[in-house]
Amino acid sequence: MHQDLHFITLATADLDATRSFYGALGWASLIDVEGEIVFYQVAPGLVLGFFEAEKFNQDLGGSTQHTGASGLTLAHNVASPAEVEILVDQMATAGGTVLTAPQEGDFGGIFHAHVRDPNGVIWELAHNPGWRVDAAGRVSFG
Amino acid sequence: MHQDLHFITLATADLDATRSFYGALGWASLIDVEGEIVFYQVAPGLVLGFFEAEKFNQDLGGSTQHTGASGLTLAHNVASPAEVEILVDQMATAGGTVLTAPQEGDFGGIFHAHVRDPNGVIWELAHNPGWRVDAAGRVSFG
Repeated sequence: MHQDLHFITLATADLDATRSFYGALGWASLIDVEGEIVFYQVAPGLVLGFFEAEKFNQDLGGSTQHTGASGLTLAHNVASPAEVEILVDQMATAGGTVLTAPQEGDFGGIFHAHVRDPNGVIWELAHNPGWRVDAAGRVSFG
Repeated sequence: MHQDLHFITLATADLDATRSFYGALGWASLIDVEGEIVFYQVAPGLVLGFFEAEKFNQDLGGSTQHTGASGLTLAHNVASPAEVEILVDQMATAGGTVLTAPQEGDFGGIFHAHVRDPNGVIWELAHNPGWRVDAAGRVSFG
């Protein structure tokens, strides 16, 4: 199996709250289907989808019943601790809930905070001084 | 906020099962810390991490208690329906559980299946004839 991820799809109980939150942060949808799903491109070749929970469960053949996503964090890195603080304020204004205030992390000298979006999805906003991406998209950090 | 995702981190109850499953599929870790976390690069500039659940919860300041990730699917696209069937067999051999057998999907002419990894994370394996990524990494589909 090639080591590639193409979609991340999250069950959501409130598509309109999702559109409002990410729209307030300046995000543009790739495809937006009323009552179904909204897709945002979030990396080269990678799409993040929010899929209305009932349809998400149907698509899985009824084998599971999810009302939202849990047990995961999505992370966004910025260039400085000050930018972490600015972004946390922007997310709170957009309707996010701050779970951990901006602070030093336990690993790799990072400075980070956690904010929950209206779906319950937790974002880690971080300044990670060891984070590097080369011209080919290869990541190194630590 | 820039429309970029840098890490996806999933709570896992069994790091060794994770290493065994993705290793059997031919994946190489970017960083692997015993008892803590294993990272795999899965797109340009994007890292997928499996974080031991107790430490995942600590990192969130104890505000949540997760034993695994749910309410999400990760998707991997291949070039043909036959490749979907081959990949489902490979994942089952590696220790995955087939939730939906390879079949026509409801959207976009896709042919897909769902397989659960040992963490409970659900992979969608798909042939999506409308999926395109241009030289700049921009996605279009539908």
